[in-house]
Amino acid sequence: MSQKVDKQHIWHPLTQHQSHPEHIVIKKAKGAILYDENGNEYIDAIASWYTCMYGHCNPYITQKVSEQMRNLDHVVFTGFTHKPATDLATSLMKILPQNQQKIFFSDNGSTSVDIALKMSLQYYFNQGLKRNKIIAFQDGFHGDTFGAMSVSGLSIYNGPFEDHFLDVDRIAVPNKSNIEKVKKHFITLLSKNNVAAFIYEPLVQGAAAMKMHDADLLNQLLEIAKKFNVITIADEVMTGFGKTGKNFASEYLIELPDIICLSKSLTGGLVPMAITSCSDKIYQAFLSSEMEKGFFHGHTYSANPTSCTAAIASIELLMSKEIQNSIDRIKTAHKSFLENINNHPKVKSTRQQGIIAAVDLNIETDRYGDLRYKLFDFYMEKGVYLRPLGNTVYILAPFIISNEQLTKIYKAIEDSLEII
Amino acid sequence: MSQKVDKQHIWHPLTQHQSHPEHIVIKKAKGAILYDENGNEYIDAIASWYTCMYGHCNPYITQKVSEQMRNLDHVVFTGFTHKPATDLATSLMKILPQNQQKIFFSDNGSTSVDIALKMSLQYYFNQGLKRNKIIAFQDGFHGDTFGAMSVSGLSIYNGPFEDHFLDVDRIAVPNKSNIEKVKKHFITLLSKNNVAAFIYEPLVQGAAAMKMHDADLLNQLLEIAKKFNVITIADEVMTGFGKTGKNFASEYLIELPDIICLSKSLTGGLVPMAITSCSDKIYQAFLSSEMEKGFFHGHTYSANPTSCTAAIASIELLMSKEIQNSIDRIKTAHKSFLENINNHPKVKSTRQQGIIAAVDLNIETDRYGDLRYKLFDFYMEKGVYLRPLGNTVYILAPFIISNEQLTKIYKAIEDSLEII
Repeated sequence: MSQKVDKQHIWHPLTQHQSHPEHIVIKKAKGAILYDENGNEYIDAIASWYTCMYGHCNPYITQKVSEQMRNLDHVVFTGFTHKPATDLATSLMKILPQNQQKIFFSDNGSTSVDIALKMSLQYYFNQGLKRNKIIAFQDGFHGDTFGAMSVSGLSIYNGPFEDHFLDVDRIAVPNKSNIEKVKKHFITLLSKNNVAAFIYEPLVQGAAAMKMHDADLLNQLLEIAKKFNVITIADEVMTGFGKTGKNFASEYLIELPDIICLSKSLTGGLVPMAITSCSDKIYQAFLSSEMEKGFFHGHTYSANPTSCTAAIASIELLMSKEIQNSIDRIKTAHKSFLENINNHPKVKSTRQQGIIAAVDLNIETDRYGDLRYKLFDFYMEKGVYLRPLGNTVYILAPFIISNEQLTKIYKAIEDSLEII
Repeated sequence: MSQKVDKQHIWHPLTQHQSHPEHIVIKKAKGAILYDENGNEYIDAIASWYTCMYGHCNPYITQKVSEQMRNLDHVVFTGFTHKPATDLATSLMKILPQNQQKIFFSDNGSTSVDIALKMSLQYYFNQGLKRNKIIAFQDGFHGDTFGAMSVSGLSIYNGPFEDHFLDVDRIAVPNKSNIEKVKKHFITLLSKNNVAAFIYEPLVQGAAAMKMHDADLLNQLLEIAKKFNVITIADEVMTGFGKTGKNFASEYLIELPDIICLSKSLTGGLVPMAITSCSDKIYQAFLSSEMEKGFFHGHTYSANPTSCTAAIASIELLMSKEIQNSIDRIKTAHKSFLENINNHPKVKSTRQQGIIAAVDLNIETDRYGDLRYKLFDFYMEKGVYLRPLGNTVYILAPFIISNEQLTKIYKAIEDSLEII
């Protein structure tokens, strides 16, 4: 029944409906497990796009949210404030990099990036300076609204819209061989004095298939950006909240970002919310006796108390000994799995950052090629939900995953090497 | 305590923090009433930006959502589907204009507009046609992401970003005097064959201060758009779900829109969600054996089951006899209030569409001028939350507002005429 209505009336994201198989109806989720309507179980090895990190339907989060929504569901966030918002601010200030001072609310990762870009452009505009260019990494992904799309470099998403983009220059992601060339290119671009901001996914480029780069190399670029007084924007929508082994990937860096984008596991997967945080330097540039120097951006559900409550509870869980121990446990388990599989002839390379583990298969395939679907089906048959990107299979499981469940995921990946 | 943290760490939307008074801490909300931390009560006469239309913390909606979040909180909406999404599709198909066939999910009004614009641009791109221009109304407001901002015409929001906008032409909102001129202008623009879409807020321009236009005049423009094969986008984020006296403002028109944007009261104010619906004509243009002709837009929380459940419950309430009767009751009450106040020398004009009532005061003031704050404070003193826009005071109260509460709102507005 659901499948029939789905086919008739639902347009799914990131889907070519003509060739896509019927959508699987998920009926229930609990802990690390998804249950479909036919009674099949799947380990959610990517935590539903890195959101449900504390387990699906986490009883602590749902209890807190249930209480909140009976007391204060929503109120306009201009002129009014409320305890869920200020408590969340307090929680975040304890764990965000120390230069972060203000938080601005929105509803998803894309809007958190559009906001970061707008803050950067207006930061200079308010000072009478014209800096209209943004620099971003090749193959970066930052979202799907026009601003976020402009700074993203994955072409399948962008084709029909490129005429409408912000003015963006791209630099290569640094590695040990190209770092001097990348720095030179970066300096050439910045020397024009028209660059407002540099945006990057710190350490791990998620949608590019969990590509990783060294903290030290990124740090060298951030040092240069600071020298040219360019605003640095860390898009931690994917990397935030413990996944890289620290609360934020930015903690691996010496140079702290001026602006940070947050979403996904911010609310533990229960309800949408996003935050753009920034340093006091950014905020100060918007204070003025002229009304229009304020930041006239606002979403209706800004700081929705229900979402704030889910976020407060999620951060409490993140900081618990139990979850912190779990992060260490998963890191160690991934490490030996990757060491083990790394020598297999069908494996090209492996990499890891915190609890994010990725395996590049020794094959060529399109991002959405046939092999990707073959692998997807194979894993689902084995009771594991993994979502390969091109020839990359990655694991980003909920923090609460058990050792037995991890073993099952590893086994599924090992077995899949036999079918390619 | 909350106020102190607020001041230290929170950046509010649409706020010049240098001159803005301290934010009032709202502690609780129930039905039509907001309660602050000092025990003061305010009637929420604008339903927290037109979201909490069934009353704050509505027990029916919160109960359904509490159950849902214990069963299925979230799952990736590519490859998977679920009953909350398909049930919501079924509910919406019963009430949306009959040509609407597909729904695409996102998280707020701005993204629903960016999606509508991207659908329109790619619709032509997929057919090998270059149509890159959008037409929008003067003083329209469609949101704050780069796409949505581009089609919005309220300058205080746009100043620093205009270099980065989509290519947009504006036409005047039609009235009985200018209609022939507007039509001629519209035809001139459309004759260039480079227009992809025409976006409009049907009947009521919300952020422009509840400006209203005749259905017949808008319909004449839509007829012209259809002749030129231009996609029509009805932004019903504010007008949707009963506020204009019908479920959707588009129902007052003969020409149906190709695309509709929905958010705000879609989920009854409990959690964020937005939907972009469209006709089959639009959807068909994305079906292809070429993967990249699909719509590669996706937000992580697309079709979040918690939000879908809030929306299903909200639509059930909307369709109930109780709410439908209430809409009639409020319409009638507004009508006699406006007739009564219309002759007051301090009143310039009044207007009404469904349960939306607006009074233009016979004074000049900036959108965010001093008088606006004076009026705001006056209403709050009287226990009524109203949010004047320039010299316009408008009412858009929850459907469940009582006659006594309505009388109190009317009285506050009448009394405020004495202080201006």
